[in-house]
Amino acid sequence: MAEGGRGRRGGGGAARRAERTSGKIEQARFITRNIPDFEILNAEALEIIEANAETVLEEIGVAFPENEPALALWREAGAGVEGDRVRIPRGLARKLCATAPSTFTQIARNPDRNVEIGGRNLVLAPVYGPPFVRDAGGRRYATLEDFHKFVKLGHMSKWLHHSGGTVCEPTDIPVNKRHYDMLLAHMTLTDKPFMGSVTEPSRARDSVEMCDILFGGLDDRTAMVSLININSPLTFDSIMMGALEEYVRANQAVIISPFIVGGAMAPVSVAGTLAQVLAEVMAGVAYSQLVRAGAPVIFGAFVTSIDMNSGAPTFGTPEAAQITYGAGQLARRLGLPYRSAGSFCGSKLPDAQAAYETANSLNTGLLSGVNFMLHACGWLEGGLVADFDKFVMDADQLGILHKLAEGIPMDENGQAMDAIREVGPGGHYLGCAHTQANFKSAFWKSNVLDYKPFETWADEGSRDTRALASARADALLAAYEQPTMDPAVREALADYVARKKESMPDAFM
Amino acid sequence: MAEGGRGRRGGGGAARRAERTSGKIEQARFITRNIPDFEILNAEALEIIEANAETVLEEIGVAFPENEPALALWREAGAGVEGDRVRIPRGLARKLCATAPSTFTQIARNPDRNVEIGGRNLVLAPVYGPPFVRDAGGRRYATLEDFHKFVKLGHMSKWLHHSGGTVCEPTDIPVNKRHYDMLLAHMTLTDKPFMGSVTEPSRARDSVEMCDILFGGLDDRTAMVSLININSPLTFDSIMMGALEEYVRANQAVIISPFIVGGAMAPVSVAGTLAQVLAEVMAGVAYSQLVRAGAPVIFGAFVTSIDMNSGAPTFGTPEAAQITYGAGQLARRLGLPYRSAGSFCGSKLPDAQAAYETANSLNTGLLSGVNFMLHACGWLEGGLVADFDKFVMDADQLGILHKLAEGIPMDENGQAMDAIREVGPGGHYLGCAHTQANFKSAFWKSNVLDYKPFETWADEGSRDTRALASARADALLAAYEQPTMDPAVREALADYVARKKESMPDAFM
Repeated sequence: MAEGGRGRRGGGGAARRAERTSGKIEQARFITRNIPDFEILNAEALEIIEANAETVLEEIGVAFPENEPALALWREAGAGVEGDRVRIPRGLARKLCATAPSTFTQIARNPDRNVEIGGRNLVLAPVYGPPFVRDAGGRRYATLEDFHKFVKLGHMSKWLHHSGGTVCEPTDIPVNKRHYDMLLAHMTLTDKPFMGSVTEPSRARDSVEMCDILFGGLDDRTAMVSLININSPLTFDSIMMGALEEYVRANQAVIISPFIVGGAMAPVSVAGTLAQVLAEVMAGVAYSQLVRAGAPVIFGAFVTSIDMNSGAPTFGTPEAAQITYGAGQLARRLGLPYRSAGSFCGSKLPDAQAAYETANSLNTGLLSGVNFMLHACGWLEGGLVADFDKFVMDADQLGILHKLAEGIPMDENGQAMDAIREVGPGGHYLGCAHTQANFKSAFWKSNVLDYKPFETWADEGSRDTRALASARADALLAAYEQPTMDPAVREALADYVARKKESMPDAFM
Repeated sequence: MAEGGRGRRGGGGAARRAERTSGKIEQARFITRNIPDFEILNAEALEIIEANAETVLEEIGVAFPENEPALALWREAGAGVEGDRVRIPRGLARKLCATAPSTFTQIARNPDRNVEIGGRNLVLAPVYGPPFVRDAGGRRYATLEDFHKFVKLGHMSKWLHHSGGTVCEPTDIPVNKRHYDMLLAHMTLTDKPFMGSVTEPSRARDSVEMCDILFGGLDDRTAMVSLININSPLTFDSIMMGALEEYVRANQAVIISPFIVGGAMAPVSVAGTLAQVLAEVMAGVAYSQLVRAGAPVIFGAFVTSIDMNSGAPTFGTPEAAQITYGAGQLARRLGLPYRSAGSFCGSKLPDAQAAYETANSLNTGLLSGVNFMLHACGWLEGGLVADFDKFVMDADQLGILHKLAEGIPMDENGQAMDAIREVGPGGHYLGCAHTQANFKSAFWKSNVLDYKPFETWADEGSRDTRALASARADALLAAYEQPTMDPAVREALADYVARKKESMPDAFM
């Protein structure tokens, strides 16, 4: 099928491109930061953490259980292998990481939506993984219909650059067939870039094959970024590694991401967690480069604190912020793109708690130099729930990151000395020439939040943010238009999915 | 009366101090940052803005209307005075600012609550100025009873270091007598430091006299920080300046604060606003030093954006963040303590909008190097409303700033290498020795937000953040105990207030 797909490449490209961009929705380019990063650690602290990470790799090592081929690769590279434990001599992992690119392009079927991951860039993708959804009607198991709605909302969102992956789990579809429907949705309902399946190596292979069809042959172009979680502490699950191997061999990008609830999967201290995170990422990235040197990988860090009373993960906390800032510095020193932060919260509702926690993490994400932000909108209840209202609310807040990252224009227009001269003491700027010339682009403006006078707001029903977001979600879905696509490609994808689904019995685990 | 007060100083101090600290509420020390500031502007941009501010002062000048004594002082200092316009030669304002201290102590009647304003410190004070309050029952005009409740909530808040000033306007009290009741509340219902009245020079004088009684004679010790707004652009109102003069002569601190809704009182551009803010603050601080060289003053910056459709001020915006970061750099280069940021929001309810906007501003405030944060909790609806629930929610979030500012401990315990060794690949940290030794202080914990499992939360009534905060506000008020105080001082203060109030007719404007 992948081979069959290649034949289509190049035919009628210009016409198709025109069709693809015919949608009239307003879309922002990925963020390129024109502001510095916040550096919470000084050089001495960074060196201590880096030395500790090397000690962890050398003395304690990492486990690659049930993965003989991986152990063989490590042995060959010079690591000490004992059982499934891999001990990596000081400096080896960092040396192996050096072949990974510091920046790479992820292509989308609409080339205007290609994203550059790394450097000063920030690419925003929606929530990933929740089995539940919530909307005005309450909380329930997610379905494929919900999944489709989220992909459409993501497509309509000006500030989202990426359609993500498992925006919610379509629990009405058998586990072994979900990835077909999810990929088909990302490929047909939007023209933004997306993520591949990681739950089985075979599903990663399927993802690559579907991309081969969509892109008329991938030819080593990177069309997916997929999420490979490390089973922290220090363990590399063979299923996840199997998916990684499939992707890396096809030059598809992976995020190598420790999944850490502080105090459970890592020490309760920030510096200890950072050393472990760095060791884990270095081992994972080094392994990816053993599989295929030069394959694109991202330094991931998913970190939360824990409520020591209930054992629940907590979000938007100062400890998570410190780790996110510190890990960004470590990623830059390693020369790798960085993934962290998101619309994290522990709240059950899209209320003030959800917004405090989310805003804390989004702000931290921008200033810590994150290059790929998964979960940038829609996350609720510790990731158990994808919330339609919060998806829209958070996506709106992402506009703030775009404007803040632009930095402060210092040209003559930015300095505005003529305006200050024109207005003078006691005047006002509302009507002055500089204001007239600049007011349309001067201030970021929310499409969700309420700026009206109290009386107007009260007359309109005293709606809270959730109600406003709910109305906006409905409006976006009503205005949604499917981006056009070569019907032959769509048909080939549908055929592939139908044939694959027929070839296997349903499995619900 | 001030003279009478002095006689009490020193008598029975130790016994009174023991009494004063007998309350058992947990209180945090003001924040001392162990993290760097976020520097959004490079050296070149800072120099351009500083040069532009000097140009504004020299070419355009500032207005001191209806204030002959001020104009005389300026003339004497070498400024060009024409009508009420003061043109300040390049370098003069900055030179005059140099006598203002970079750090000063504000004393509280409980010496444990003294605060150091400036340097690496951050002092947090509540919302200031709203004529309305909101609680579970809705929105209404504020009364003295509301004011008392806010002062009590502030007293009980672990993370607030300061009782503030006009936490809400007690609109049931005549305008010309409110300051007596407000000061009496700050002096008797809490032992945290507070602010003085600025609405008339005579009320500033009254504030100083009441402090003289409270402290048994001030003797130039700084017991108040008061808010002097500049009538932006570039105008120094004679009433505000009259209050400033009273305070500065008594060595009481003032915040010299441009009040800027971007696009109305300053240019729509960030760099233009920063030049104007710097010019205004330099002129105000320079004037304060002409009145009394060495008097403590704070570089203030109150900045919001504007919604160009409705004309409403907007909060938590990227432009406000950029100005807040930039002004922090300008304040540090001027060697002055810096006031900005707060629990700003435009929302009508303590909902997600309120929390996003507030969190954006609080995070910016911490990283921009703010030394005194007025409005750190309780602000709602663009400052028209002081909200009881949001006061408690925001005050809880201030705990995050404390923890984040501590930085990342890099000692052996922080590095936690023994824990990583003990646990190893595939283990978990919940029971390890390092976790046992550190878990109590490892993670910041909210006293308001919900961390419970979904089912427990649902069983308990599916409460949102506002409902949780409302319950906490009630609990705090129920547990409130008035801090003890020398009865003679209390009586003297009550006598002073009664006598003053009797001496004048009520005025409601």
